[in-house]
Amino acid sequence: MILSGCGVLDGSEIHESVCALLHLDRHDATVTMAAPNDDQPQTINHLTSQPTGESRNMRIEAARIARGEITDLADVKGTDFDAIVLPGGFGAAKNLCTFADEGADCAVHPQVERVLNEAHEAGKVIGFICISPTIGARVFRAKVTVGVDEETAAKIEQMGASHERHATEEICVDEDRRIVSTPAYMSAERIGQVYEGIGRLVDEVLAMAGREVAAAKT
Amino acid sequence: MILSGCGVLDGSEIHESVCALLHLDRHDATVTMAAPNDDQPQTINHLTSQPTGESRNMRIEAARIARGEITDLADVKGTDFDAIVLPGGFGAAKNLCTFADEGADCAVHPQVERVLNEAHEAGKVIGFICISPTIGARVFRAKVTVGVDEETAAKIEQMGASHERHATEEICVDEDRRIVSTPAYMSAERIGQVYEGIGRLVDEVLAMAGREVAAAKT
Repeated sequence: MILSGCGVLDGSEIHESVCALLHLDRHDATVTMAAPNDDQPQTINHLTSQPTGESRNMRIEAARIARGEITDLADVKGTDFDAIVLPGGFGAAKNLCTFADEGADCAVHPQVERVLNEAHEAGKVIGFICISPTIGARVFRAKVTVGVDEETAAKIEQMGASHERHATEEICVDEDRRIVSTPAYMSAERIGQVYEGIGRLVDEVLAMAGREVAAAKT
Repeated sequence: MILSGCGVLDGSEIHESVCALLHLDRHDATVTMAAPNDDQPQTINHLTSQPTGESRNMRIEAARIARGEITDLADVKGTDFDAIVLPGGFGAAKNLCTFADEGADCAVHPQVERVLNEAHEAGKVIGFICISPTIGARVFRAKVTVGVDEETAAKIEQMGASHERHATEEICVDEDRRIVSTPAYMSAERIGQVYEGIGRLVDEVLAMAGREVAAAKT
């Protein structure tokens, strides 16, 4: 799991990250959490939604979600895992890539891009949650969903990717590219919807990862 | 729900807080989140477990878990809710009371004590998760569980309260005082156990709260 900090406005969305951990645990998956060892471009006061002027490090803040153990993304190889999952939160669109500011012209954090490419080239499955499918659009021109947000969907298509409208509890599956996405808080009104959608995403990501393993064994 | 910050080492335990929100949502409960509007005594780097020397405000940090909307605990009346739930994390033992430093001689944050007393005197139900049952021991001399931690259990009994050993997935119910507790990360090895125990706690808290409502209506 690749995190970007701790909190919806400047890091990883906390509910989404925990829902993903819960569903991965339900499947008995072994999870390694990782984040870039770089400062967030901004720290936001979540009560006022205003920048605080502080400098906070993505990995150190994401360690709050990970309860301490979190790897420097620079030390991660995308080939070491069956699958990679990215929760959303503005950190996915501001820290892991520049989509929030630059839209369809965004750049992806070099360590994130490297790890995703390594995983993808080795046939691994990638799950993108909430706003993070924009990274899948940028790097892989994948078919993804961010729910029903027309503006973000248009930017995704500008990147040469394709967008599918889906309800919060649903997932979008790009079978060819082995990429799964779900809208989560792009459209959720309740945390229970986020839990349900991410549950489907994790089910599908692990099912696809298992199919790869089975195919490799034959 | 009373929070104390955002992160296991200096605030509210994130997984416990989100699990509680998920189960409350499953029951269609309307949740108000609140935290004291005071600085945490310490901020801890969750990667190194060392103090950072920074000053962070409990309510502002807890707003990360709440996704923005979080009431100043000073503006909360304990009588305004059917039930109150406190997640754990060291924030419960360092910010909401002084148990981490002073053990059985601990003091409880005055706003926390006021709100809990208001709720309790009105027959409301209180759910304590993880280390936060020490607050129930201090304020109400309640029967609680923190799992199988002998040292914490001994301090709870020194406060004139009583301790029951329970597995992570179990709850302890003090019917007389209308207080429910569960060990969560006091003993959990996996997030799934935390989800299960907190699920039982929320089920019981809301069932007891419902019985009060039913009794009041007859």
